[in-house]
Amino acid sequence: MKIAVFGTGTVGRTLAAAFSSLGHEVVLGTRDPAETARRTEPGPMGGQPFNEWQAAHQSIRLETFAAAAEEGDMVVNATNGAASLAALAAAGGANLAGKVLLDVSNPLDFSQGMPPVLNPVNTESLGERIQRSFPDARVVKTLNTMNAGLMVDPGKLADGDHSVFVSGDNSEAKAQVTELLQALGHRDIIDLGDITSARGAEMVLPLWLRLFGALGTPDFNFKVVRGG
Amino acid sequence: MKIAVFGTGTVGRTLAAAFSSLGHEVVLGTRDPAETARRTEPGPMGGQPFNEWQAAHQSIRLETFAAAAEEGDMVVNATNGAASLAALAAAGGANLAGKVLLDVSNPLDFSQGMPPVLNPVNTESLGERIQRSFPDARVVKTLNTMNAGLMVDPGKLADGDHSVFVSGDNSEAKAQVTELLQALGHRDIIDLGDITSARGAEMVLPLWLRLFGALGTPDFNFKVVRGG
Repeated sequence: MKIAVFGTGTVGRTLAAAFSSLGHEVVLGTRDPAETARRTEPGPMGGQPFNEWQAAHQSIRLETFAAAAEEGDMVVNATNGAASLAALAAAGGANLAGKVLLDVSNPLDFSQGMPPVLNPVNTESLGERIQRSFPDARVVKTLNTMNAGLMVDPGKLADGDHSVFVSGDNSEAKAQVTELLQALGHRDIIDLGDITSARGAEMVLPLWLRLFGALGTPDFNFKVVRGG
Repeated sequence: MKIAVFGTGTVGRTLAAAFSSLGHEVVLGTRDPAETARRTEPGPMGGQPFNEWQAAHQSIRLETFAAAAEEGDMVVNATNGAASLAALAAAGGANLAGKVLLDVSNPLDFSQGMPPVLNPVNTESLGERIQRSFPDARVVKTLNTMNAGLMVDPGKLADGDHSVFVSGDNSEAKAQVTELLQALGHRDIIDLGDITSARGAEMVLPLWLRLFGALGTPDFNFKVVRGG
């Protein structure tokens, strides 16, 4: 499968590399490929400069959002939540139509200081906004409740004995995403329901952020413990 | 210890009976004790009529919010989130001053239909509102992320191998609540931070409600899985 990953930050890079390792052809979508390729400064979290990362992942091409989406059989939104709708608009609805749009973004708003708040929240979610803005895409919200390392290598924590959620209106799209999650090593994949259930998955972020602070590490995840 | 439990619904009754079993003296607070004691109809969720429950728990006295709070060394808010501030106001700030106020309520708003939304949410929480309204009480938010049966008997699910959160401004109050949680059988008690972290614990409710729907049972809980 050819997968277009939107976003060149830690999450986008981590997902792109993992999908490539699974044997998929991966294209990375960004606003301005020439500008992104020139980045020699470390990322905001002290990550590897983009040009170094790209040198180590030469099979992953960098394209505009539109070119990447046009090529992709599946599109993965790993952009910053505040920029997601603009990135998808730049891709163009026609390039998303009929495709699975796997959305891992979180609508974190840092404009009011720390901790960030969610926007939208409660009666709305970013997953729903994306689905409404691109009605012909088949949006599946998933993976947004854990850090990038665990998204692609759940087995490194407790042998993978923790949970991941999927939300979406299209069962076939959820089945396809579930298969991809299984290929990454996810064992407990819980279908929360239609895309409105993305509210639940997104609203877990404030707890996730507090746990990050309390535990001093992002290497944790939620497991939904239930009876046999 | 003498514990005043506010709320005569499933959560209040379950907590009251459990604290009584642990050897505490328990008083149940309600708006109008005579009216509550007369209730012979099943609860809204088909629960036991109050008068039957009371006949089976005669050591637990029913009092007004104010009388119960005055007697209690600790006050537990297990009222409906929409009614919590009014119940605590009826108790009177002086009767709460200096006491641990264990808050298990969730600010669920059913007025816009199902699923309920949270009010307050995001930049605010009910736990914080309670602390701000009663600055001399020592509010600890906890237990609101699981059903009443698991609150008092965590061991019935996966041998108690799941998590409970505490949020509050006062370390001594959190230590006292932690002791009570341990007495109930909780083994993984995570201190999220000050009372603003109650936002995280409350905002997990939408996910909890979706999981209730997806799993078809309320007998589940979250475990925060982290490395050794």
